[in-house]
Amino acid sequence: MISFSEALDKILSEVRIYPSEIISLDQTLGRVLGEDITADRDYPPFHRSAMDGFALHSYDYTPNQIYPYHRELPAGMSMDLEPNEKAIRIMTGAPVPDGFDLVIKIEDATLTEFNGQKQVSFSLKEVKPWQNIAKQGEDVKNNQLVLPKGIQIGTSEFSLLASLGKDKVSVVKAPKVHIISTGNEVVPIHQSPLPFQIRDSNSYTITSILSKYKIQPESVTHVPDRDKELTEQIQKGLEADILILSGGVSMGSMDLVPSILLRLGVELLFHKTSIKPGKPIWFGKRKNTIVFGMPGNPFSVQTCSRIFLEPFLRKSHGQSQLPSYKLPYSTTKQKKGALTEFFPARLETTDKTYLTPLAFNGSGDIRAGIFSDGLAIFPSDLSQIQQGDMIEFLPW
Amino acid sequence: MISFSEALDKILSEVRIYPSEIISLDQTLGRVLGEDITADRDYPPFHRSAMDGFALHSYDYTPNQIYPYHRELPAGMSMDLEPNEKAIRIMTGAPVPDGFDLVIKIEDATLTEFNGQKQVSFSLKEVKPWQNIAKQGEDVKNNQLVLPKGIQIGTSEFSLLASLGKDKVSVVKAPKVHIISTGNEVVPIHQSPLPFQIRDSNSYTITSILSKYKIQPESVTHVPDRDKELTEQIQKGLEADILILSGGVSMGSMDLVPSILLRLGVELLFHKTSIKPGKPIWFGKRKNTIVFGMPGNPFSVQTCSRIFLEPFLRKSHGQSQLPSYKLPYSTTKQKKGALTEFFPARLETTDKTYLTPLAFNGSGDIRAGIFSDGLAIFPSDLSQIQQGDMIEFLPW
Repeated sequence: MISFSEALDKILSEVRIYPSEIISLDQTLGRVLGEDITADRDYPPFHRSAMDGFALHSYDYTPNQIYPYHRELPAGMSMDLEPNEKAIRIMTGAPVPDGFDLVIKIEDATLTEFNGQKQVSFSLKEVKPWQNIAKQGEDVKNNQLVLPKGIQIGTSEFSLLASLGKDKVSVVKAPKVHIISTGNEVVPIHQSPLPFQIRDSNSYTITSILSKYKIQPESVTHVPDRDKELTEQIQKGLEADILILSGGVSMGSMDLVPSILLRLGVELLFHKTSIKPGKPIWFGKRKNTIVFGMPGNPFSVQTCSRIFLEPFLRKSHGQSQLPSYKLPYSTTKQKKGALTEFFPARLETTDKTYLTPLAFNGSGDIRAGIFSDGLAIFPSDLSQIQQGDMIEFLPW
Repeated sequence: MISFSEALDKILSEVRIYPSEIISLDQTLGRVLGEDITADRDYPPFHRSAMDGFALHSYDYTPNQIYPYHRELPAGMSMDLEPNEKAIRIMTGAPVPDGFDLVIKIEDATLTEFNGQKQVSFSLKEVKPWQNIAKQGEDVKNNQLVLPKGIQIGTSEFSLLASLGKDKVSVVKAPKVHIISTGNEVVPIHQSPLPFQIRDSNSYTITSILSKYKIQPESVTHVPDRDKELTEQIQKGLEADILILSGGVSMGSMDLVPSILLRLGVELLFHKTSIKPGKPIWFGKRKNTIVFGMPGNPFSVQTCSRIFLEPFLRKSHGQSQLPSYKLPYSTTKQKKGALTEFFPARLETTDKTYLTPLAFNGSGDIRAGIFSDGLAIFPSDLSQIQQGDMIEFLPW
C-alpha cells in the first residue's frame, strides 16, 4: 500500500491544465487569475497629498513664517502654480502641484487673516521634502507585474483589480465535474430513510468543496450498487474532466466501483493508501478524465477532498497549494498502527495559539468536522503526540 | 479620541437582530443558521457494521473454530437471524442483526467449503463485544442538539444537514445594505481616469466582505463631493439596514459626509478612533439604520471592514466572532505614536508557524493586503515588536 505522500505525488503528477475565460470583474471573487496583471499607469498616478493641509516647497519652509494663500485644491482637480505662489490649501488625495514638495497637515497649521488676505503659519521645527506626500509610482510603476496568474481572487485582489480598471478579467475556466454517490443503503435527502438506510450527504460535501473554487458540478447523481445502472452512470460521468464517486471502493462484495471503472477502460493509478480515514480511495484516469473514487463514510469524503481533491484542483488551476501550519498541540494523543491519521482540530488561543483535537467516533460519525478549523496530521511513524509538540495542521 | 476597543464596543452595542428565512439546503453554504438543529433519529440509526467481514456473537467466539454460514447482508437491507445461525457475511454500512454483537473483518477470516457448505474461521486470539460496530446512537441521540443557531454553514455543517435530511433550513436573513463611495477624484472603474483621478475600488472591497456573509448590496453608488447629490443619495441610503460610505469623513473642506449625516438626523456615536489605518471613521445610527462612514483609502476600507463591519455583522447574525490568533513574530518592528496599528501579514512555516509582515506604503497603497493571510495588530502601548514576541493576528 502506498504512503500518503506517494499517493499525493501520483495525484499531482496527473494534473490537467484548464483553459481560461474572460469574465466581468463582478463575477471574479473566488476565481483564479488566468493572466498576469500589470499596472496600467504609475500608482499613485501623481504626487498625492496624504493629508488635508497645506502644500508648499520644503526649501521655502521656515517655522512660524507667515504664508499668504488664496487657493484651495480639492481631490479630483489639478492646479498650476501662479508666479510667487508660496502655499495652497490642499486636500487628501489631491495632486501636489509641480513646484511644491511638502504637505503640512491642517492640525499643525495656524490660520489667520490680514487685510482680507488669508494666511497660514506652522510651528513645526523641521520638515522633510516629500513629507505627507505619496510620490508618483512609489507603490507600483507603470507596466509592473502586480498580480501573477494563479492567484485566487480575494478581497485585496478584487479591490486591486478595480483600482487598475480591469472590468474584464481572464480567469481559469472551471472544469466539468460529475459527482456520483453510490450505495444501496443511501437515499436522497428529501426521501424518508428506512431504519437501515442513511441519507446521501457525500454529494453535498463534495459540492461544497467545489464551491470554494466556484465550480458548479454538471451533474450530481445517486446510484444504488447495481452493476447495470452504475455502469451506465459511470460511463456518462467519464465525459467530465473530473469524475468523483463516493462509496463502493472497499472490500465488500457490493463494492462494484473498481471493477466497473476498469471494465470501462479507466487506468488504475492507485487503490488504497496508508491513511485514516480514507484508506480505500481509488484513483485513476481515462484520457483527459480524472477519477476519484472516495470511500463512503462522511468524514472520509471530507478528508479525501481536503488532502487530495483540493491539491489537484489548485495545481490544475496554476495555484499554489493551501498552506499547512505547525502549531503546538494542547494535549496528548496516542495511536496504534502505522497509518497517517487526520483528525479534526480547532485553534484555541490563550498565551499563544494551540491546536486542540475535537472528539469524534471515527469516519462514520456524521458530526466529525463540525466546529473544527481544519485537519491535524498524526504522522505515520509516531505513536504519541506530547503536549507542546509542533503538529502539522491543514486549515479548511 | 476613543480607543480601538472602545470603538468596537460602541459598534457591538448597536447590534441589530435580523429575522430568519427558510431556504433550500442547496443555497445555505456560507449562510448563518437561524434555528437550532436537532437529530431526527439516533446516529448511527442502527448498529452499523464498520467493516466488510462476518457478524457473529462474541460469547460464541473461539479462535480457529469453524462457523458454517449461508447468508450475506449488504448495506441497505436488514435480516432477522434464523434459528441456530452462528455467522453471516456482512458488508460495511449494513445493520448488524439482533442477536449478534461482533464483526470480524474479512482480512482476518479464512473461508473454506465443506460438502457444499460455506464456512469461515478466524485466528484472532481475542475479540471484544461490539468490535467493529458503530453502535446505534453512539454519535448522536435522537432529538439531541447537533448544530446551534448562529453557526455559519461550511462544508461539515452542510454535510451534516444533508445527513439529517434538512432540505429546508432556517437562516438569518441578509440585511439590506447600501454602499456609497464618495470623492471628486474617484471615477467608476469602466471610465478612463484623468491623470489626477483614481478608480473606485472601495465599493468592490466592501461588496467582497459582504459576500463572505452572502449579502448582496441593494445598491452601490458613487457620488462626487457635491452637497446636493450626496444629500439625496445618503437620504436614499438611510432606507437600508446598513449604510456604508467610503471617503469624505476626514478633515478636508470637501469632507461633507459628517455634516450631511447630522443634517439628515443621523445620531453620531463616534467620529475617529486611535487606530491606523482607519482613524477618521465615522459611526452613527438613525432608528434601525446603522451608518459606517469609512475613510477613503483602500487599505483603510479593508481594515475597517475586517475590524468593525465584520464583527457587527457577525453579532447581528448571532454568530461568534472571528477568532484571533497569537503567533510568534518572525522579525522586529518599530512604531512611533500611540495608535493601535494594523498591518498585513502572512503566516510562514518552518519549524513552527510565524507571522511575517508584508511591506506596503501606507493606507493609500493599492497593493496593501495582497498575498496576506490577515491583519497583525501592533498594540497602542508598544513601540517595538521583537522577534519571537506573540502577536495578535486576525485572519481574513
